[in-house]
Amino acid sequence: MNMTAASTATVRSNGERLWQSLMDLARIGATPKGGVCRLALTELDRQARDQFVRWAEDAGCSVRVDAIGNIFARRAGCDDSLPPVMTGSHIDTQPTGGKFDGNYGVMAGLEVVRTLNAHGIKTRAPIEVAVWTNEEGSRFVPVMMGSGVFAGAFTLEHALQQRDAEGVSVSEALQAIGYAGPAGPAAHPVGAYFEAHIEQGPVLEKHDKVIGVVQAALGQRWYDVTLTGMEAHAGPTPMELRKDALLAASDLIAAVNRIALDRKPHGRGTVGQLGVYPNSRNVIPGSVTMTVDLRAPDDTMLTSMDAALKAVCAEIRAGRNVGIQLQQVVYFPPQPFTPQLVEAVRRNATALGYSAMDVVSGAGHDAVYVARLAPTAMIFVPCADGISHNEIEDAEPAHLEAGCNVLLRAMLDTAGVVA
Amino acid sequence: MNMTAASTATVRSNGERLWQSLMDLARIGATPKGGVCRLALTELDRQARDQFVRWAEDAGCSVRVDAIGNIFARRAGCDDSLPPVMTGSHIDTQPTGGKFDGNYGVMAGLEVVRTLNAHGIKTRAPIEVAVWTNEEGSRFVPVMMGSGVFAGAFTLEHALQQRDAEGVSVSEALQAIGYAGPAGPAAHPVGAYFEAHIEQGPVLEKHDKVIGVVQAALGQRWYDVTLTGMEAHAGPTPMELRKDALLAASDLIAAVNRIALDRKPHGRGTVGQLGVYPNSRNVIPGSVTMTVDLRAPDDTMLTSMDAALKAVCAEIRAGRNVGIQLQQVVYFPPQPFTPQLVEAVRRNATALGYSAMDVVSGAGHDAVYVARLAPTAMIFVPCADGISHNEIEDAEPAHLEAGCNVLLRAMLDTAGVVA
Repeated sequence: MNMTAASTATVRSNGERLWQSLMDLARIGATPKGGVCRLALTELDRQARDQFVRWAEDAGCSVRVDAIGNIFARRAGCDDSLPPVMTGSHIDTQPTGGKFDGNYGVMAGLEVVRTLNAHGIKTRAPIEVAVWTNEEGSRFVPVMMGSGVFAGAFTLEHALQQRDAEGVSVSEALQAIGYAGPAGPAAHPVGAYFEAHIEQGPVLEKHDKVIGVVQAALGQRWYDVTLTGMEAHAGPTPMELRKDALLAASDLIAAVNRIALDRKPHGRGTVGQLGVYPNSRNVIPGSVTMTVDLRAPDDTMLTSMDAALKAVCAEIRAGRNVGIQLQQVVYFPPQPFTPQLVEAVRRNATALGYSAMDVVSGAGHDAVYVARLAPTAMIFVPCADGISHNEIEDAEPAHLEAGCNVLLRAMLDTAGVVA
Repeated sequence: MNMTAASTATVRSNGERLWQSLMDLARIGATPKGGVCRLALTELDRQARDQFVRWAEDAGCSVRVDAIGNIFARRAGCDDSLPPVMTGSHIDTQPTGGKFDGNYGVMAGLEVVRTLNAHGIKTRAPIEVAVWTNEEGSRFVPVMMGSGVFAGAFTLEHALQQRDAEGVSVSEALQAIGYAGPAGPAAHPVGAYFEAHIEQGPVLEKHDKVIGVVQAALGQRWYDVTLTGMEAHAGPTPMELRKDALLAASDLIAAVNRIALDRKPHGRGTVGQLGVYPNSRNVIPGSVTMTVDLRAPDDTMLTSMDAALKAVCAEIRAGRNVGIQLQQVVYFPPQPFTPQLVEAVRRNATALGYSAMDVVSGAGHDAVYVARLAPTAMIFVPCADGISHNEIEDAEPAHLEAGCNVLLRAMLDTAGVVA
């Protein structure tokens, strides 16, 4: 690879066109507060998909849809026997989502195609822009459904059977919006996959950097915890005779924080959900249910966090005289990205004169599943105050353009340019 | 005082009759699980009041009802110009209450009268048995309403205006059940007040004692606390950039426990209620609301606990970078009981050969208000596993009889026996 012709070194994406496409797409499902509500496989999702398909076909791409509704827009390469260099993301949103989460990765891919067209650049390998079905998981679980089926994380049949709160299945919803593509058997090899995304966190903004060079996606272990003490009247019960489930829970909350702080900078530990029973002002809590979310960039660290959590639970159980049940409910392995592609992102960010830093992805993305079957890297750009999954989600046009330029050049480096 | 004739030294209450009265009363509002649901000023409360009045009149008492519905059954003394030696408690219950809370104090008073009758004992001062209106506060707030009005803690007018969840006022409910007595102006002086009660805590059982000699009722300060951080995605947000309201709350829970442990044996500190927002597994909590309940046997200690709580909030605010709003919502001053009467309880428990220990009352009782205007003491007996405000509330007949014998002798010591 590395066949970029010197003549393409000055080629840049059109930031204004990219921004306009993002704003046009954001009108479909626009909310009064400036966000977007476009749940997966709804009529609004259909309208956004149709819009993307029209734009892609206008840009000369051929479009195919697979059995889980993933859309692939392909710009032919000089050697179509080569597996495509792919980019993409998702266009479904959270119920109170923003304009950029997912949508940016898809529109940046479209802008790459438009830029290549505008400059008459031919690539050796084909270029594809993917729209993955139901990344958010707001209407149907599991999350990252389309990329998960694509990567074999779970089966097509499993995904198609899932139902929303109204009892509508994924299969029925795909039929209803006309995006149920033919089932297999065609394999879909991928030469390389890049995904551009808003960071959805505060690190780039905090460090005043434009490009995040994503090293890995954090692995995750999620737990449900139940602490069982004995409820009793807060007045007549002396401190030493109590079995206070909330006091024990407070030990655990502090310990989860310590477990993460001991593993800087990328260890994460969060208690996000907690319920108290009977939750009465003058009654010592008899039981507490809570969640624990641990994340780490490699499995050795994640395993050691799991061991530390279990040791802490044993200590608290003995010290506070309460029962503790700890159950792991989710495990996502850490996913390192492909060093060669990560390096392509870093090199091009530098060549383009953008400030850049190495980061990790704390959240899941379609790229995390695609990385199981193809070389993969991600490009982060800042979002305002690190806020995402919120109608006030915002990003700077200049940052979005910068990320798109890095994507363009990294894809060209990988696909090869035919002079 | 101390005029007990030697001939009364061997007089004992009738434990079987006491138990039978408790069981008869418990049939009114009996629940399938063996408890009692007899909310204040309901038709069931009327039935239980009527039953008490019949029993009291059968025992030769004259009965009067005051404007807040308190019932006073009076057994004449030889010198009726003396203020009565009073005992009593309440017969309203929690929605899922037991047979003994409150009811024991009233039935023990009735048993004292019956015992005096059976042995033809004449007291110098009159004896009265009080049934205080709405001690529990389950249907109408404030709690301890009848004794509160009696003691001038709040006005009759304030109490009568309070409404239940259906909008029925105390005044209307009193009229409906026929227990709205005439309003003042008659003063009702009290020579001394004793209240027998199940402990509602685990201390006597833990120490294997039959009689609790109650020194004081703990003072209480109740607070509402709001902690305000910033909600953010648990994955992409590094530990050092978080403002985690629940982590700050866990510091506060631990501190409340420490503040109480530093003031053994009677300091108490409890966080009973806690809510997390947005309470989502993978979102760093943006805010937490919680309660704090501090109790101490004297105001110096309670004030120092308040100061310690405020200091801790300031520390946490700075250390965790969150906002903390602390608001005191309830203050009950500590209420020491009258040394001379407390000593009468202790002396008679010993004389009767019962194991006894000094205790404090962690909860509120009618005696706490009556103590504001008359010499007052309380007698505790054990309840099974310290459990109260629960349909499984239970107590041993022998313990109930023992408490009644101590009450009998302490009242005779105080009222004086006419040979």
